[in-house]
Amino acid sequence: MPLPRQVFIAVIGAGGVGKCFLSQLHHLATKLSQSPAAPTYLSLIYLSTSKKALYHNDYKSLSNWESELQASSTTPLSLTQLAEYLIKAPGKVVLVDNTSNQEVADSYPQFLKQGVSLVTPNKKAFSGSYGLWQDIFAAASNGNGSGGWVFHESSVGAGLPVISTLKDLVETGDEVQKIEGVFSGTMSFLFNSFQPVNGGGGKFSAEVKTAKDKGFTEPDPRDDLNGLDVARKLTILARLAGLKVESPTSFPVQSLIPKELESCSSGDEFLSKLPEFDGQMDKLKADAEKEGKVVRFVGSVDVPKGQVKVGLEKFDKSHPIAALKGSDNIIAFYTKRYGDNPLIIQGAGAGGEVTAMGVTGDLVKVLRLLQ
Amino acid sequence: MPLPRQVFIAVIGAGGVGKCFLSQLHHLATKLSQSPAAPTYLSLIYLSTSKKALYHNDYKSLSNWESELQASSTTPLSLTQLAEYLIKAPGKVVLVDNTSNQEVADSYPQFLKQGVSLVTPNKKAFSGSYGLWQDIFAAASNGNGSGGWVFHESSVGAGLPVISTLKDLVETGDEVQKIEGVFSGTMSFLFNSFQPVNGGGGKFSAEVKTAKDKGFTEPDPRDDLNGLDVARKLTILARLAGLKVESPTSFPVQSLIPKELESCSSGDEFLSKLPEFDGQMDKLKADAEKEGKVVRFVGSVDVPKGQVKVGLEKFDKSHPIAALKGSDNIIAFYTKRYGDNPLIIQGAGAGGEVTAMGVTGDLVKVLRLLQ
Repeated sequence: MPLPRQVFIAVIGAGGVGKCFLSQLHHLATKLSQSPAAPTYLSLIYLSTSKKALYHNDYKSLSNWESELQASSTTPLSLTQLAEYLIKAPGKVVLVDNTSNQEVADSYPQFLKQGVSLVTPNKKAFSGSYGLWQDIFAAASNGNGSGGWVFHESSVGAGLPVISTLKDLVETGDEVQKIEGVFSGTMSFLFNSFQPVNGGGGKFSAEVKTAKDKGFTEPDPRDDLNGLDVARKLTILARLAGLKVESPTSFPVQSLIPKELESCSSGDEFLSKLPEFDGQMDKLKADAEKEGKVVRFVGSVDVPKGQVKVGLEKFDKSHPIAALKGSDNIIAFYTKRYGDNPLIIQGAGAGGEVTAMGVTGDLVKVLRLLQ
Repeated sequence: MPLPRQVFIAVIGAGGVGKCFLSQLHHLATKLSQSPAAPTYLSLIYLSTSKKALYHNDYKSLSNWESELQASSTTPLSLTQLAEYLIKAPGKVVLVDNTSNQEVADSYPQFLKQGVSLVTPNKKAFSGSYGLWQDIFAAASNGNGSGGWVFHESSVGAGLPVISTLKDLVETGDEVQKIEGVFSGTMSFLFNSFQPVNGGGGKFSAEVKTAKDKGFTEPDPRDDLNGLDVARKLTILARLAGLKVESPTSFPVQSLIPKELESCSSGDEFLSKLPEFDGQMDKLKADAEKEGKVVRFVGSVDVPKGQVKVGLEKFDKSHPIAALKGSDNIIAFYTKRYGDNPLIIQGAGAGGEVTAMGVTGDLVKVLRLLQ
């Protein structure tokens, strides 16, 4: 069963993750084409940003996409047009969605139904409405359907093997009792700096500013501090563990944006006023310290109780979550088989290269399945 | 692309891991047969121990295997006979080798060449001679061949996603610089008890005895203390990272069996004399303590230098390897993409259920590929 000789790849998004992916794709395509036994040729037949696109009506492979995309005056195809274009391709097609766009996510069932496979780090598709989740997996071959394959390892923990591990646990019949961890590189950095295990740490508002300056936050740090990013990841994990979570706002999510600052009109205004609330955060820190603990921003899923929550928790200083470094993620799976000591996965959970790695790894899996 | 409607399963070995696997197989078969869209029927058509076997010449599914195996007077097929039997099965076949037998391992290329897929926790096949490694992957579809698929996640770290993660790193083009960790549940327990991070701990010989009494060692604890089990796992990881390691004895492996006790004629004699060497171990412990460190038994692969080694090392008390608990394994991948903070996987790396889980997880992957 050699790999297929040619597979067509379409890529939406050429930002931070997208650029890293395209570079990894080039590496992969070169390697696969040189396999002595069963060479596979990957052809990039579509590449788009929000404003521009590159493609040939005869499905000729794109080359020099970086310069050509800059020079291009072609506008992107609508999602319906893109589906028509891909379905007529003379071979199997994998669509790589490197955006975080809801509209693209909403179109997944259409692509899958028509046999296009999908790999993506886009959280929106899997953490939006439960209806969309059902539609995606009703269409996909790795669901109940007979359409394309869909993989989204990078939607939680970037390239860390979080989703594949949870799927393995569930599929092999383990009972997942609890999933707990730090799921945001930003939150990890903020709290590892705010309250290091060995003492010290700065004011919370100052750490937010440092994180923003280092590029560890979204352009507007409120997009991290509201907890929604973590809530989306927990929604995905809870659903994979078998819970019918309606949406990322259907369970308790603690926002670190003080009520009084919710009406700030800009991120800058928010940042300038945040120091007024440092006292509240200092108190949390001191209270934890009194118990020999530290404060961390975590998410957890209690499967038997059907509970999902996101927010601040206190941890013993010897707990693996307390000992986390830099902007690392940590995810602990407590299951029947693993007993008291959970299965733990830890490492960088954000960044272009490692996120793209999860996408490329998924692409390799799909290529194997598309024999 | 629905899953195949029927796949035949043959299982060699019904010991600790084998029994757990058969129970997980039953669970998986029930679930797959009930899939509304594309039911798959798994038929167990062969089951053997070293002395007995169960199978029907007409490939009828085995049932009540536990009682029937006990009552059986059928001897196992030779590996050549087994290959003949499986090749004539009216459908795709997966052979599950739940032994640690070298002879079975040596036969993998034959099975693979003839289209039989293989899943196994048997380290012998992947850590034996480099020639056998090459023959296996020259034959397999996930190598350079066009035969069956071969997966062996449980050959390192039991059900922990160690091998799949390393493969993903390599296949997506990351540069693995170093792999380091505690790869033996026995060694983990021994050193976590001998020198806990917070002080205390017993004499080394007493901890070995405790580990044996708790069933954490092989029947003869020398089979753990000689380091060969860890060396086998490191051989597998080093090869996956691209190094041509000739055998598990072709690099430095520190044995914890004192030279003077190498000639002991039994495990019991060894255990009775081991206390005479506690002074040496106490000195190692005290030396580490002076540096604020603890002693651990680790394996490491330095990929750029092409070096593999297994033995005692000292670690800062804040190092994740020092903080390990119970009999957990920990594996850290240092790569170009992950930078200073490695990708870490941690959890139980031994035990029937979690080892079988790795095998069952591999079986699920093969079933997807056998569409």
